[in-house]
Amino acid sequence: MQKIIADQKIFRDELLKCSTSIEGKIEKILPKNFTDSRLIEAMRYCILSNGKRIRPFLVLSSAKMFNVSQEQALNTAIAIEFIHTYSLIHDDLPAMDDDDMRRGRLSCHKQFDEATAILAGDAFLTYAFEILSDSETHEDPAVRCQLISAIAKSSGFRGMVGGQMIDLENCDQKISSEQIAKLHRLKTGELFMCSVESGAILGNASNMERKALRNFAHDLGLAFQIKDDILDHCDNDNAKADHNSNSSIVKTIGLANAKQRLELLKSQAITHLSIFDSRSKSLTKLAEFVVSRDR
Amino acid sequence: MQKIIADQKIFRDELLKCSTSIEGKIEKILPKNFTDSRLIEAMRYCILSNGKRIRPFLVLSSAKMFNVSQEQALNTAIAIEFIHTYSLIHDDLPAMDDDDMRRGRLSCHKQFDEATAILAGDAFLTYAFEILSDSETHEDPAVRCQLISAIAKSSGFRGMVGGQMIDLENCDQKISSEQIAKLHRLKTGELFMCSVESGAILGNASNMERKALRNFAHDLGLAFQIKDDILDHCDNDNAKADHNSNSSIVKTIGLANAKQRLELLKSQAITHLSIFDSRSKSLTKLAEFVVSRDR
Repeated sequence: MQKIIADQKIFRDELLKCSTSIEGKIEKILPKNFTDSRLIEAMRYCILSNGKRIRPFLVLSSAKMFNVSQEQALNTAIAIEFIHTYSLIHDDLPAMDDDDMRRGRLSCHKQFDEATAILAGDAFLTYAFEILSDSETHEDPAVRCQLISAIAKSSGFRGMVGGQMIDLENCDQKISSEQIAKLHRLKTGELFMCSVESGAILGNASNMERKALRNFAHDLGLAFQIKDDILDHCDNDNAKADHNSNSSIVKTIGLANAKQRLELLKSQAITHLSIFDSRSKSLTKLAEFVVSRDR
Repeated sequence: MQKIIADQKIFRDELLKCSTSIEGKIEKILPKNFTDSRLIEAMRYCILSNGKRIRPFLVLSSAKMFNVSQEQALNTAIAIEFIHTYSLIHDDLPAMDDDDMRRGRLSCHKQFDEATAILAGDAFLTYAFEILSDSETHEDPAVRCQLISAIAKSSGFRGMVGGQMIDLENCDQKISSEQIAKLHRLKTGELFMCSVESGAILGNASNMERKALRNFAHDLGLAFQIKDDILDHCDNDNAKADHNSNSSIVKTIGLANAKQRLELLKSQAITHLSIFDSRSKSLTKLAEFVVSRDR
């Protein structure tokens, strides 16, 4: 038990290191005094808000496996974090999940207002693609186009946005665990998948390697959501519970089954990494962290 | 007078031809039975809604000037129309301009609901960049990256989104005609400018040609907004009047001055085209149409 806690601590430090690089770069591309606009203020409030930075970590770890430096992969990692942040801002809106709090602070529309939150989300999504098209992201424009295509597909109507739509359409009815899995795959899994794929694209990985990484991230995304549901379920004050509890896997299959599925997904995820031997150590540790974290 | 009406009729036919091509292509990339999703239904409702298609027309006309076929420029034209459509959907939301009607029909959030409207907007913005990254848009990925960069810059926080933010920030106070011009340049002008620039990028135009086209579109964008304000002002039932009348140039400088400025901007816009001789005929006709249209 103590070993697990110690490992978690070490891994949290690794995540924190990634987070520090990301935030350092964000300070450069979205500086405080860029303009005096309320929009920039809102964007900075949302992006510099103590997120776990799991998606950037996925990009950087995957890129490193193919000998791409952290410095080289940083733009891509930030673009994906921008897209994740925009999705949280829009998901929190009153017309959507109506969440007043996010990461222990007021959500964007509560801290600012709804219009600013809508625009901050729009600005992040647009800025992500601007960054990806920049030669600093990768010297080869063909690689940049590959990144843009993969990331747009994963976050659009056939991916993350489509998942949020299914979630909203089903918020008044109980759905099966298969439907929940589909929902989670689209809402969370797609962005996880394109994060590792982006690292692989930057490093010109083979199709087999890309596929293995996508399979890993697919299972990791599902595990991540199940862990979130378990944490929400066990959260005594229930303040953090999802409004849309119909999509909670714990409510649908029960806590014991959810925990079992979580372990299964973790093992499955790690198995997909076997072709990489020790190169995928960071990703294995991330999978361990995702299932054992306490938030 | 009869000549003007006849010319307008001919030009409207030209716009309609452009619109038909655009809609034909949209039917292919966003087909009715793509999925049974409410999201696709909402996207189709908004994009196939009798818009004037001025931005696609700008792309196609500009591309044609550099010997790029309509077929080749169609993807870029559609991507920009997607971005324009997303901006209208989000601008109409209750938290923004709160418009129930759009192009004579219910706005997206009235026809569907707010959540669907937010997601449909997000989906359009994302899909625009997916299309732009596709090899069908241009065979050279360097050109595609140039397009993505220009379009993202024009529509993001330093462009269209930034303009909408300024508009919202000033909705309770009277602003000067200079501030209104800045607002219009960002909200409308930027997308006009990147439309003509995109055609120039597709056709590998010189920097001087790009600059001339951007200058033309800059003035055209301002003229377009002034004409809109004049039409709103003269609209007897006022049903179409902008909620945010503080940014109406007619209210700020008066109808006579607004009309004078409109004519000046048109002449100025057309003057920027002089380096192209007869190649820019379509754009000249568009400028004439923009100031003389009755809606």
